[in-house]
Amino acid sequence: MLREETVRTPAPQAFVDVTALVRKAVKTAGIQEGHVLVSVPHTTAALTVNENADPSVVSDLLRRLEAAFPTNDPADGHGEGNSHAHLKSSLFGSCHPFIVAEGDLVLGTWQGIYLCEFDGPRTRKLVISVLAAHP
Amino acid sequence: MLREETVRTPAPQAFVDVTALVRKAVKTAGIQEGHVLVSVPHTTAALTVNENADPSVVSDLLRRLEAAFPTNDPADGHGEGNSHAHLKSSLFGSCHPFIVAEGDLVLGTWQGIYLCEFDGPRTRKLVISVLAAHP
Amino acid sequence: MLREETVRTPAPQAFVDVTALVRKAVKTAGIQEGHVLVSVPHTTAALTVNENADPSVVSDLLRRLEAAFPTNDPADGHGEGNSHAHLKSSLFGSCHPFIVAEGDLVLGTWQGIYLCEFDGPRTRKLVISVLAAHP
Repeated sequence: MLREETVRTPAPQAFVDVTALVRKAVKTAGIQEGHVLVSVPHTTAALTVNENADPSVVSDLLRRLEAAFPTNDPADGHGEGNSHAHLKSSLFGSCHPFIVAEGDLVLGTWQGIYLCEFDGPRTRKLVISVLAAHP
Repeated sequence: MLREETVRTPAPQAFVDVTALVRKAVKTAGIQEGHVLVSVPHTTAALTVNENADPSVVSDLLRRLEAAFPTNDPADGHGEGNSHAHLKSSLFGSCHPFIVAEGDLVLGTWQGIYLCEFDGPRTRKLVISVLAAHP
Repeated sequence: MLREETVRTPAPQAFVDVTALVRKAVKTAGIQEGHVLVSVPHTTAALTVNENADPSVVSDLLRRLEAAFPTNDPADGHGEGNSHAHLKSSLFGSCHPFIVAEGDLVLGTWQGIYLCEFDGPRTRKLVISVLAAHP
């Protein structure tokens, strides 16, 4: 089962929690066991799984990434000035797999799924594909 | 087929080879062809695939990661002091896919699957899901 | 369905666009909906999805990665002198999932699939596994 969602990102660099959207797709598919793929079909946004409790984890991640791979780098050849966002997206990955068991996503207590915006704000697409195990 | 394992990590930052655990799950499932997902349902541990021969590769990886993203960063807002571990986990990823063919994991000669501990030592969970191709 | 390809990489560090090879495997499998895994069974090469239009994006990525994780690091213990390549491979990942819908790969307009060589030039293997959804 395939599902598409759109996500509005609020800032040049931000994480948006999309766990509920992915969970909804799993529930709608109605499967008990299987695999889910979540894809962000963009090249300056990505996905990650990380802590869903203290928001300072996300801001620490963004600040540390920016320190290692700063937005502005005079050596960049790409004219749009967003090579940093392309690199951060490749580091986090744009398509992530998840396990479904007992009708729900297998996630740890502190795990949330984030759409990672590195060149926003924009409206981003999320494609979710649910594949059932053999009955 | 779903399988859970626990893995004890020996140090604050360490890689533990879990290839045999994943291989065992594939053999137990008894499938010939399919996809496997391996998930570490934590936010300060991750998975990676890398060289299984010379252990200095793993120590070089940990040292180089630590140089780029040091454990202690006075700018971190997260009170637990493990933001570096959250970032390293997002960079490596907590759920990885693997191909099964001819009844076994498809891995290169030098590829081993590692559970990557970035905030240990702890007992970590490993969830393995094996999905068979259509017969 | 399983398919193997070989890819010749042209330089010590380079990205080779393999989108057409992956697309061909999907078409050959003839499935309408499902999941694809693409694996590079090596430890100093990887895969990523990124911009397929302006080649300066790729050169910016390689240059920025090299700045953060230089080829030569006197602290490396691994005798082959390619620890940087092992790390870059772990950061990008050697097995990536893709969604198939309506008989084709789900990719954004600007997304291309790259085999990332970090210790070449070499001949690398690509393993592609296509898993169909239930009919």
